[in-house]
Amino acid sequence: MPIQLELKRIIINEIDEDQVIVLNEVDGERSLPIVIGQFEAVSIDRRVKQLSTPRPLTHDLIVNAIELSGGEIQDVLINDLREHTYFAQLRVRQAGELIEIDCRPSDAVAVAVTARVPIYVNESVLGDALDE
Amino acid sequence: MPIQLELKRIIINEIDEDQVIVLNEVDGERSLPIVIGQFEAVSIDRRVKQLSTPRPLTHDLIVNAIELSGGEIQDVLINDLREHTYFAQLRVRQAGELIEIDCRPSDAVAVAVTARVPIYVNESVLGDALDE
Repeated sequence: MPIQLELKRIIINEIDEDQVIVLNEVDGERSLPIVIGQFEAVSIDRRVKQLSTPRPLTHDLIVNAIELSGGEIQDVLINDLREHTYFAQLRVRQAGELIEIDCRPSDAVAVAVTARVPIYVNESVLGDALDE
Repeated sequence: MPIQLELKRIIINEIDEDQVIVLNEVDGERSLPIVIGQFEAVSIDRRVKQLSTPRPLTHDLIVNAIELSGGEIQDVLINDLREHTYFAQLRVRQAGELIEIDCRPSDAVAVAVTARVPIYVNESVLGDALDE
C-alpha cells in the first residue's frame, strides 16, 4: 500500500553538485532523504516558491505536454529502490486508463509540486531506505 | 514558411552558466546561435553522444510522456523572438490533430535530438535574429 509523502525540505548546497530533498510521511514520522542534481533542486525550489517565468520551464513543459495530450496527472509514486538508486513513475489518467511513465524521483517531485498532485512511496521502498 | 535547421555545435563553457548552441540552415548558409542554460546544454550533448543512463532523464521523460499519451512528436519549431528571447513549440500529432506545446528553444532542441525529429524556425525569426 503506497504511503503519502510531502516535500519537507530542499537543502541547496552551493559547493557540491549533489543536493538533497527530504520527503516526510504525511501520516507518520518517517522521512525519506533523496539526493538529486542541482538543476532539479533549483527547479523544485522555484516551484515551491511559485516564482513565475516568461517561458515554460522544463517541468512546466512536462505537465503541459501531458495535459494538452488529454491526460490528467493523478499522482507520482516512488516505486522502487535498487542498488541505492530510487525509481519513480508519473501516474496519468487518460481516457479512463492509468498510464505509468518511468522517471527519476527528482523529476517526479518537480512534476508533483508543479501540478499540485500527491507524492507516494511504496512501503517496501520506505522500509528498505531506512534500513540502509 | 518554416526553415529546417540542424544542430551544428554545442559550445560548453565551464566558467560561465550560459552556454551556446548553434543551429545551421539545412538548405542554406545562415546559422542561429542560441544561449541556453548549462543543464540544457549538457542534456543536449548527452543525447547527441547517445550516452545511456539507467533511468530516464528529464528530456527522455518528456518524449516518453507524449508517446505513452498516444502522441507522436512531429517536429519542433522556434516560432518567435521577442525582446531578445526566443520562443519555441513542440508540435505533436495526436488522434489526427496537431497540438502545439509552448517551450523554450533549449527544451525543444533537447526533445528534437532525443526523439530524432526535425527542428524548424520561422523565416521571420531567423531574419530578425541576424539583424540584431
